[in-house]
Amino acid sequence: MTQKLPFEALSVETLPSRLGDNEALRAKIGKDTSAWKVREVGDGNLNLVFIVEGASGAAVVKQALPYVRLVGDSWPLPLKRSFFEYHALTRQEERAPGSVPTIYHFDEAQALIIMEYLSPHIILRRALIEGRQLPNIARDIGLFMARTLFRGSDLHMAARDRKADLALFADNVELCDITENLVFSDPYFDARMNRHTSPQLDGIVAELRADRDLKVEAQRLKHSFAANAETLLHGDLHSGSIMVTERETRMIDPEFAFYGPMAFDVGMLLANFWMSFFSQRGHEQSGKRDAMRAYLLEVTVETWVVFRAEFSHLWRTERTGMLYQKSLFEDQGDRLGAEQALDHVLHQIWTDLLGFAGIEVHRRILGLAHNADFETIADEDLRASCEAKALKFGRHLAVNRRQIHSIDEVSTLAALIEQESSI
Amino acid sequence: MTQKLPFEALSVETLPSRLGDNEALRAKIGKDTSAWKVREVGDGNLNLVFIVEGASGAAVVKQALPYVRLVGDSWPLPLKRSFFEYHALTRQEERAPGSVPTIYHFDEAQALIIMEYLSPHIILRRALIEGRQLPNIARDIGLFMARTLFRGSDLHMAARDRKADLALFADNVELCDITENLVFSDPYFDARMNRHTSPQLDGIVAELRADRDLKVEAQRLKHSFAANAETLLHGDLHSGSIMVTERETRMIDPEFAFYGPMAFDVGMLLANFWMSFFSQRGHEQSGKRDAMRAYLLEVTVETWVVFRAEFSHLWRTERTGMLYQKSLFEDQGDRLGAEQALDHVLHQIWTDLLGFAGIEVHRRILGLAHNADFETIADEDLRASCEAKALKFGRHLAVNRRQIHSIDEVSTLAALIEQESSI
Repeated sequence: MTQKLPFEALSVETLPSRLGDNEALRAKIGKDTSAWKVREVGDGNLNLVFIVEGASGAAVVKQALPYVRLVGDSWPLPLKRSFFEYHALTRQEERAPGSVPTIYHFDEAQALIIMEYLSPHIILRRALIEGRQLPNIARDIGLFMARTLFRGSDLHMAARDRKADLALFADNVELCDITENLVFSDPYFDARMNRHTSPQLDGIVAELRADRDLKVEAQRLKHSFAANAETLLHGDLHSGSIMVTERETRMIDPEFAFYGPMAFDVGMLLANFWMSFFSQRGHEQSGKRDAMRAYLLEVTVETWVVFRAEFSHLWRTERTGMLYQKSLFEDQGDRLGAEQALDHVLHQIWTDLLGFAGIEVHRRILGLAHNADFETIADEDLRASCEAKALKFGRHLAVNRRQIHSIDEVSTLAALIEQESSI
Repeated sequence: MTQKLPFEALSVETLPSRLGDNEALRAKIGKDTSAWKVREVGDGNLNLVFIVEGASGAAVVKQALPYVRLVGDSWPLPLKRSFFEYHALTRQEERAPGSVPTIYHFDEAQALIIMEYLSPHIILRRALIEGRQLPNIARDIGLFMARTLFRGSDLHMAARDRKADLALFADNVELCDITENLVFSDPYFDARMNRHTSPQLDGIVAELRADRDLKVEAQRLKHSFAANAETLLHGDLHSGSIMVTERETRMIDPEFAFYGPMAFDVGMLLANFWMSFFSQRGHEQSGKRDAMRAYLLEVTVETWVVFRAEFSHLWRTERTGMLYQKSLFEDQGDRLGAEQALDHVLHQIWTDLLGFAGIEVHRRILGLAHNADFETIADEDLRASCEAKALKFGRHLAVNRRQIHSIDEVSTLAALIEQESSI
């Protein structure tokens, strides 16, 4: 099935003729290509995304470009990220069934994935900006993270399989490089591609860049990100990588997938809820957002509670890998030994996720890739005020992460910072 | 140069005809193969080692066997370990020039490395058993560890190169598996291949296997060993992998090389000095060993001091990788920020090396692969008494590693345990 032609970017016009003989796509949406309707809807930073509708259905065609779409061809980026996305999606579907779009076809040479068109799903970030309270996201995302992170690690997998997979994903160098630089380093010095709401944030930006403790923590977290190949991460699990309906939640876009620390996915995800929390004041022209803020804190609490519960459940029932073997604990009648080890592992994830969350907040306000939660606040003074609070919150998390014991404390901290005009 | 013939184990008889046309070997030892004298001297657990002497010199031919020599062909082991050893040796030579044998030739299909014959070097472990005080080992080994561990990490390398190398060594699955099981797990339950001095140690063995805190620590260390791909390790850096003269020190046998935590090599190495310390009483028939014991503690102190000093020097002068970039610290006039980060990194290495050291002591007394320090003590009661002290010392290090602040404290602890008859 794989086309051997050299890579060529699709367009709305060429897609029907280029993919008209693709059996998977024809079977899904109908064989009459003259009836196909194609729209390009990519709103991310990197790729082309088409929705193709035919007589009997619809599908998404996602194609990588040989450069960063947000920046242009001055920043080349390998097509192989499509290969990593495809392999990540198949592993996620296996480990957390029903959590990602169904794949119909993958073409490595053309760097394209044909997959399920999720409808009427919208991007979670958009829903949160609109002030929609979705009842299932905490549970769905908490389960997704626990299942993919646990089942992709030496807690569950055969060591040989994990090492082979680690070698496969080690080649995802350029996308790791984006995270390594844009997330962990650039925000903390005058890097070329940085931007922030200016001049309103100039003072706090200078303060953060002079903050030795913060910078050391950010680099220690980068050290862990780069070295601690614990499990296959989604790698970019923010609210723009999640599609929702009132009842359903699907994780998309795992092209940043690689082997890293479990806490990274969890921390990035929670950071995006906390940023949504601090951005709500900027969206109050359409009505007060007190209930939405309360909802968002509840979501962070429930996500972590569900994650912990499911991770613990898997620890007790699927701990079949080489780490913390039952032969050392349960098989010796020492169930409590296994629980003690679980506490240690969860404690490490907790401590690290707070750090990753703090850094993620910073880079979304100080670095290259901002997010719509803040960007859509047109009033720059209002936006800067929301952003400044988030920056202070992020700094507190990153530097004090070993002294924060519970998610409730983080909720209290967020509420305190939100209420105080100067803190 | 590479032979395409299928693998065949060499023997003393076949070596001259099989390698008689090898240019590298002929150039080194002389072309007249009829004058070659061959001895097999492998005393390790895994491989064949030949010394070949000719008219003009000598060389070592090391060949992997497709099974574990210590156990036999019931335990197959891939020939590819020779490939990993070769690649580790070349990287070590590059990063710490003069610290490993010179390589003359590598044949992947025959799993053989032809290398420098070190003479009059002897195995460090043998020298220590004989009570010899070598003046340079602490300095030489401390420098070797700091240089290879620092320069093989994201502190120094380009991220792309490290990731590619990590993928290469990720395939060294079977040798990692040996460490993962034999070092971190088997000693703590009734594993098939375990043995210990019995019945003398039966009591303490039962105690250690019921020691929940110890077992949890051992597994957390295993977790770090398996996941934390920080740098290219030697992977088996004990006193049997080091050859010495009065003035020279060379590290050999890095076939266990893979990407793991820096603290592993340092911890295993120091553990072997501490085991030598506790074994000295078993060798006192040839004279008191008080001075030797004092020397061994001084060696551990100096090794760690040299390691810290060289690592810190490299941190200040060769920190060219993506971690803790100068752009965040020195380039902002914040030299102290870089020093703060260095303290954090060294603290982590210190805390973890104590754990790895404790576990290494245990596995050498309770697991499959014992060491000659204790094994050559013929009196079983005396041997058991030495071993029991080492076991208690190892347990103390592994469980209390976060509360031990200096290498001097460890020396005091070792001396205390050595002096007390029941502790």
